[in-house]
Amino acid sequence: MASKVIKGGTIVTADLTYDADVKIEGGVITEIGPNLSGDEVLDATGAYIMPGGIDPHTHLEMPFMGTYSSDDFESGTRAAVAGGTTMVVDFCLPDPNQSLLEAITRWDNKSSRANCDYSFHMAITWWGEQVFNEMPEVTKRGINTFKHFMAYKGALMVDDDEMYSSFKRCAEIGALPLVHAENGDVVAQMQAQLLAEGNNGPEAHAYSRPAAVEGEATNRAIMIADMAGVPVYIVHTSSEQAHEAIRRARQNGIRAYGEPLIQHLTLDDSEYAHPDWDHAARRVMSPPFRNKKHQDSLWAGLQSGSLQVVATDHCAFTTEQKRNGIDNFTLIPNGTGGLEDRMPMLWTHGVGTGRLTMNEFVAVTSTNIAKILNMYPKKGAVLVGADADLVVWDPNKEKTIVADTQQSAIDYNVFEGKHVKGLPRFTLSRGKVVVDDGAVKTEEGHGEFVGREPYTATNKALSKWKQVTAPRKVERTGIPASGV
Amino acid sequence: MASKVIKGGTIVTADLTYDADVKIEGGVITEIGPNLSGDEVLDATGAYIMPGGIDPHTHLEMPFMGTYSSDDFESGTRAAVAGGTTMVVDFCLPDPNQSLLEAITRWDNKSSRANCDYSFHMAITWWGEQVFNEMPEVTKRGINTFKHFMAYKGALMVDDDEMYSSFKRCAEIGALPLVHAENGDVVAQMQAQLLAEGNNGPEAHAYSRPAAVEGEATNRAIMIADMAGVPVYIVHTSSEQAHEAIRRARQNGIRAYGEPLIQHLTLDDSEYAHPDWDHAARRVMSPPFRNKKHQDSLWAGLQSGSLQVVATDHCAFTTEQKRNGIDNFTLIPNGTGGLEDRMPMLWTHGVGTGRLTMNEFVAVTSTNIAKILNMYPKKGAVLVGADADLVVWDPNKEKTIVADTQQSAIDYNVFEGKHVKGLPRFTLSRGKVVVDDGAVKTEEGHGEFVGREPYTATNKALSKWKQVTAPRKVERTGIPASGV
Amino acid sequence: MASKVIKGGTIVTADLTYDADVKIEGGVITEIGPNLSGDEVLDATGAYIMPGGIDPHTHLEMPFMGTYSSDDFESGTRAAVAGGTTMVVDFCLPDPNQSLLEAITRWDNKSSRANCDYSFHMAITWWGEQVFNEMPEVTKRGINTFKHFMAYKGALMVDDDEMYSSFKRCAEIGALPLVHAENGDVVAQMQAQLLAEGNNGPEAHAYSRPAAVEGEATNRAIMIADMAGVPVYIVHTSSEQAHEAIRRARQNGIRAYGEPLIQHLTLDDSEYAHPDWDHAARRVMSPPFRNKKHQDSLWAGLQSGSLQVVATDHCAFTTEQKRNGIDNFTLIPNGTGGLEDRMPMLWTHGVGTGRLTMNEFVAVTSTNIAKILNMYPKKGAVLVGADADLVVWDPNKEKTIVADTQQSAIDYNVFEGKHVKGLPRFTLSRGKVVVDDGAVKTEEGHGEFVGREPYTATNKALSKWKQVTAPRKVERTGIPASGV
Amino acid sequence: MASKVIKGGTIVTADLTYDADVKIEGGVITEIGPNLSGDEVLDATGAYIMPGGIDPHTHLEMPFMGTYSSDDFESGTRAAVAGGTTMVVDFCLPDPNQSLLEAITRWDNKSSRANCDYSFHMAITWWGEQVFNEMPEVTKRGINTFKHFMAYKGALMVDDDEMYSSFKRCAEIGALPLVHAENGDVVAQMQAQLLAEGNNGPEAHAYSRPAAVEGEATNRAIMIADMAGVPVYIVHTSSEQAHEAIRRARQNGIRAYGEPLIQHLTLDDSEYAHPDWDHAARRVMSPPFRNKKHQDSLWAGLQSGSLQVVATDHCAFTTEQKRNGIDNFTLIPNGTGGLEDRMPMLWTHGVGTGRLTMNEFVAVTSTNIAKILNMYPKKGAVLVGADADLVVWDPNKEKTIVADTQQSAIDYNVFEGKHVKGLPRFTLSRGKVVVDDGAVKTEEGHGEFVGREPYTATNKALSKWKQVTAPRKVERTGIPASGV
Repeated sequence: MASKVIKGGTIVTADLTYDADVKIEGGVITEIGPNLSGDEVLDATGAYIMPGGIDPHTHLEMPFMGTYSSDDFESGTRAAVAGGTTMVVDFCLPDPNQSLLEAITRWDNKSSRANCDYSFHMAITWWGEQVFNEMPEVTKRGINTFKHFMAYKGALMVDDDEMYSSFKRCAEIGALPLVHAENGDVVAQMQAQLLAEGNNGPEAHAYSRPAAVEGEATNRAIMIADMAGVPVYIVHTSSEQAHEAIRRARQNGIRAYGEPLIQHLTLDDSEYAHPDWDHAARRVMSPPFRNKKHQDSLWAGLQSGSLQVVATDHCAFTTEQKRNGIDNFTLIPNGTGGLEDRMPMLWTHGVGTGRLTMNEFVAVTSTNIAKILNMYPKKGAVLVGADADLVVWDPNKEKTIVADTQQSAIDYNVFEGKHVKGLPRFTLSRGKVVVDDGAVKTEEGHGEFVGREPYTATNKALSKWKQVTAPRKVERTGIPASGV
Repeated sequence: MASKVIKGGTIVTADLTYDADVKIEGGVITEIGPNLSGDEVLDATGAYIMPGGIDPHTHLEMPFMGTYSSDDFESGTRAAVAGGTTMVVDFCLPDPNQSLLEAITRWDNKSSRANCDYSFHMAITWWGEQVFNEMPEVTKRGINTFKHFMAYKGALMVDDDEMYSSFKRCAEIGALPLVHAENGDVVAQMQAQLLAEGNNGPEAHAYSRPAAVEGEATNRAIMIADMAGVPVYIVHTSSEQAHEAIRRARQNGIRAYGEPLIQHLTLDDSEYAHPDWDHAARRVMSPPFRNKKHQDSLWAGLQSGSLQVVATDHCAFTTEQKRNGIDNFTLIPNGTGGLEDRMPMLWTHGVGTGRLTMNEFVAVTSTNIAKILNMYPKKGAVLVGADADLVVWDPNKEKTIVADTQQSAIDYNVFEGKHVKGLPRFTLSRGKVVVDDGAVKTEEGHGEFVGREPYTATNKALSKWKQVTAPRKVERTGIPASGV
Repeated sequence: MASKVIKGGTIVTADLTYDADVKIEGGVITEIGPNLSGDEVLDATGAYIMPGGIDPHTHLEMPFMGTYSSDDFESGTRAAVAGGTTMVVDFCLPDPNQSLLEAITRWDNKSSRANCDYSFHMAITWWGEQVFNEMPEVTKRGINTFKHFMAYKGALMVDDDEMYSSFKRCAEIGALPLVHAENGDVVAQMQAQLLAEGNNGPEAHAYSRPAAVEGEATNRAIMIADMAGVPVYIVHTSSEQAHEAIRRARQNGIRAYGEPLIQHLTLDDSEYAHPDWDHAARRVMSPPFRNKKHQDSLWAGLQSGSLQVVATDHCAFTTEQKRNGIDNFTLIPNGTGGLEDRMPMLWTHGVGTGRLTMNEFVAVTSTNIAKILNMYPKKGAVLVGADADLVVWDPNKEKTIVADTQQSAIDYNVFEGKHVKGLPRFTLSRGKVVVDDGAVKTEEGHGEFVGREPYTATNKALSKWKQVTAPRKVERTGIPASGV
Repeated sequence: MASKVIKGGTIVTADLTYDADVKIEGGVITEIGPNLSGDEVLDATGAYIMPGGIDPHTHLEMPFMGTYSSDDFESGTRAAVAGGTTMVVDFCLPDPNQSLLEAITRWDNKSSRANCDYSFHMAITWWGEQVFNEMPEVTKRGINTFKHFMAYKGALMVDDDEMYSSFKRCAEIGALPLVHAENGDVVAQMQAQLLAEGNNGPEAHAYSRPAAVEGEATNRAIMIADMAGVPVYIVHTSSEQAHEAIRRARQNGIRAYGEPLIQHLTLDDSEYAHPDWDHAARRVMSPPFRNKKHQDSLWAGLQSGSLQVVATDHCAFTTEQKRNGIDNFTLIPNGTGGLEDRMPMLWTHGVGTGRLTMNEFVAVTSTNIAKILNMYPKKGAVLVGADADLVVWDPNKEKTIVADTQQSAIDYNVFEGKHVKGLPRFTLSRGKVVVDDGAVKTEEGHGEFVGREPYTATNKALSKWKQVTAPRKVERTGIPASGV
């Protein structure tokens, strides 16, 4: 078994920065220290050796209106590693009344082409005894996270009753509920009203999903989780209102997490006012882009720890697919790309400005989510025994983002024209060099599924606390005769 | 037409305190000033002449499980005037699919026995084209407020979609939506769970409706109102969480009002731990009593103006009726009394401690709600031309509250044993002396319906602001051909 | 004695809007009602009859660096009435170690030329036994408000110890402390640093006084007032941080008031980036202009009631005076004008957009401060017996603000070029018509001093509450012998 | 060199829980893994191997009124290791006008008797050119933290001007300012007033330092640090108000840290109402104990990460020393013990109830402060190369805390009678077993000074951000001639 050594670099993890070499054998890190040698040497001089990025929020080859999102597990993970991300977590979406286990099988098939490791969240798209019964089976398959959509009325949306039932079940089986938080009823009403008023352009997508609608749903999801006695993870936290709900919960000791997207951190809603329809439509995603006030809030959340993870919600549709909604913004497929750009954009705007330390960069792109999803230190760590999912990050390498040279299958890039400084020199997926001195060299199917156990320390602690503080029956001396 | 003069007192209104006499003719105030004379003189020496209290939240003779709440418009308004309250606003509750106008007729019948003036709120207990069409007709009948229940699943509860539709309709017709804010789905789930665990006592009523459940619903109702472009009034705000949601909305310029009850201000949840079942069951209301933290929050809300009104939610059930839930707390009829005690309890614990000024006392018991409901200065004022709904308040009169001597039809009082200092010497309903030197002298049927116009200044200002800031369609130069 | 009648208008007060005529005799309102007649008639058709504005924050003929602010009581009050303001409250500023009573005499002299009524606040510019002893005498002279500067180090600034002593004294004598809240130590340090770095332009004035510095001092002043047991009024609240401190205090039941200026509501800090030095220097005031985030916060404060008063801090310096700081921004005299423009600007941007109702407009320009300063209903009211300080407001009259035609003595106007809709048709000062169909017709010296009593209802209630909750000595059974 | 192996245990760090043995040689960890062997074996079966606790806040042998706090570095560190704490950080307190370097020498002398490692913070007790010049020298001696007292007027207190100067200097030299946050001016005034009113008992100590006074100072210290461009660490955060100030800062991206004490987390202000004077006086510390509301806030801060560290402020005075204030609470020496009890009390009330995970326990007792003080991973880690400062924690070992058997030199314990479950089986200081199967076996003088480098990643990132956002001089086209 050939060994590799990454030499001459500085290791940067979520809590340490130090000079050392890293030795890799059999896809895992076997040694860390000075002056290591191996069969192959990767020169990290002047660069940082960091845990590869983990993007916990992608929709690859997602079924949509009889077609699919255009990046599949092959092109999606190729884009990922090109940007220093070495793992994605995608969403199994069962059809209405479909078995959760069948859905896993379908996603297993899609993901067989992945270029890097991956895992799944399971979406609760309907509710019933079968779902209730299959949930523990899903955790046995290594999926300990269940996604709930409060939006997309008539499609993926679940109501409060279903959400409480599912969260309660998550508490029992030690799983973590995830939530897409927007009030779907109100969005649907506002969509109809905007269309009725002739507001059918992509900007109306943003008008129909204001920050207030996201903040409300976030607040509601957290309350339901608290009542059900389970931690909760809010995906794509895009606004101060949603962040405020999370902060307020946390300051009361509630175990709630928030995940801003790189798009919401660096792009704003002026994009929807662009005179070119395609430009605006390509930026249609839910939640929509917000303004600077919200961006400042999200950055502060990453700095203070009230928000923990930066993701992409990568769900790429071509311009042609976007034009499905040419006369009606509600028919524009929701989603943008970002897998290749998340790490360079965050480094440039975060570390490059002093908003984040390098260690915080690693935490929010990799380590925190590895812990939350219960796959640390296999992932998210530079430790002996950890998977050699690594990126050798060159802080002086720079480029201007252009769609022409990107890995993604689509014909545009929402970050087009942005200059980034800080890019991968090497990316390694379980020890395999998939970016080599900047060149992408992936191997289709190299990626493996990463199973994740339920019952994290946080789940267990919260369960204990809920028992300690559970309602107690009052012992009564005076009870009137029954029926009176 | 005989005239009356209240002499020798100090007039206390929401914004003034001054010595003057008040002359009354034909049920209205005709003169205010020094040295007035009239056919009849009421001696107000050493006392305060204030606008009579207005209780905007009562349920008199409310249908419940084949029976009715025990105080009807006669005994209820008798209790009201005994405590210095000269007007109540009750809730018309249409049956499922019943015409709103039919419901008004039913409530007209009940209220014909009232001893003081009254008005109605209309409850939106179901939704459909008929309701939509009848709402403007309801406002023509003098009812400009529409109540929505987010709790009582399977009975009165409406969902977010219905609530948005109704709020939008309120915006159009210049009405004000009222909201009972508790998440009914979650309450129902927690009720079932508590019963399953053997928690069937009255204390489980409180366990099933924690402050978090109220806070969430309050937050949601406000967001929906904001999206619909209408002010909103939250009834029985009982907790810091609900108050926080209101405060947060207000600090963003949203027009939201909150109404604590005198029960929540002065009684706490230790009542439910009482060893006597009857004691606890008599205190069962929704929301339930809370702890001191919440009480402090409510008082501060009255002081700062983030909460505007003190009400009772008077809905009196006898001990026998309460025992309907002897084996199952969910069958205990929800409701307590308070009409006779609201003013003395608030005076004692508010003015008597320095938490409130006398002017603030008048504001929160009378003037503020008269303005919000658009019946000021006919009600809630001591002005020439205003209805002579007045209370001559003796700050040195004191008593201990006991059920034995109360006006209410029920057999207990949740304030039993509380000592109050500050009580009516005289109460006048449209000039008629209904409390005379402390003695109740009501005349059944004296009360009249008070109609209230829609389109308050606040409604109109908010509508203008929503127009000024309405979504604007983007003018586009580049739009691809339709259908691609 | 000739009578005047304002006919055909709609009376708008802080809580009422209704059609009626107003009769005036001897400088006071003697009758309000339909179809009144008098010796002279002012036609209010299509207009609103409102309480004249009260500006509680002016510095007329204020001593500064051997010269004086350029608007004196004559030109200042002329500007005031031209814009519908009929009363100003100015600040007596004793020199170091000067008797407070002597300072009153000096201000009495200046104000003898006033065209409308006025009152004074007394500034506590130093501390000592003499000040302590003279404070009750000052209240006997009709001044119940004491101003404290936390900024202007080496000049007006007092420290925490002095502030606590003075606040405590205010509590004892029933007075209200006012505070200019900026951390003077930090400002002085930052000024020195900016100058050292070559940042000597007017924009550096803003850099040296960021919102954080104001927020901190506001928070501190409120805490000290709370400990001293006295309400507190924060002048020129310009930022979200300061407003947040006030809100947070109020939501804990603390009696704190905030006063945004019309400048901070409608102008922003981009003015300091103007390429013309004079343009920027003319906008130098403390606190400096802020950005839109802060403006939104202030407007919401007026809407929700967490901020109560709109003032100007009118302190006008000519361009020539401003140029005193041509090489050093710290030498630019601090102050801008606004007396003539406050009411039209607030109407246009508040009522004209729906942010405020007309009643709220009256409240924040007149009635609220009359109550806070304890001169309601003599001032701030349209009631029989009140002073006939009135403005007949024509909502359709419009103009563009230009310095050329203004009343103020200075050569520019910070609102230059702003279009306003809503202007006085008539302004009356104690019954005298000082604006007549838009034309200014003042009489020098017509203005009188308005004395204000201490011990407001709020002061008294707070004192009671502090007694009720005062620290209690613990009764001990076990106390070791003294000295061990 | 003999080796030791800790066998059979579960390693618990701030981010990992796993079974492994730990090998120690030469005072450092040399190997972690399964099946290790060594010369000496410590049996960790059923126990957790954690980084030894670090208490960053002690006052050992602190000069006070001509005497000293009773625990010196020998007894203090003996108490520390008995409870699982393997490092303390004490405060060098220069006398007025004394050289900082001289003060270090004095503290070096005292600490020579320490039983475990230690470090120092330097207090800024006065300000001048000498202090300014010596500060970089202090960092060269391994002290990168500077303490500022906002309380203790006339003694240790510094004013805002001095604090800004010192914070600015900290920013330049890459150091971290620490702050004791209470408004000393207001405390002094309230002390005088309480004494004047006859409130001379220990309870008046608490009355004189309410939470509001702490919250204000915390808010002020953070603002000053933000203006000076440096992170800030607030010691002994005891109240919701102080925590709120920290949270609010953090949610704006400010780098502020908070440190609750184990006393404030688990004891409340009812202790001061104890009828026995000694009982109450022994609990006198600053800030004083608070109520449950504040405790809940502190616990939630640890859970959410808005508070980072649990300390003790161990400063032990005997009952005899306490009695110095028998007639005057201001003469009671401030301070309590806690070094031996911090870890067991926090484990019992935190991990034992589910409020904290085991990993969070390690974070807040050891790892977080090691990072903040820049001595991680030498301290606070279980990593190869780290100092073997370890505790083998037996979760089933229990006891009732009693003064009789404690290590501390004083005659009482504020936790007397508290039952704890979770205690050290072994404690190792740099590999030396100082608690052996529960028995204390320290060696006087074994402890070494731990030097800490300035310029943490956080300092550097913040400096970069402050440069990026620094005020920019406006380029002007129009500047009038100087002097006009």
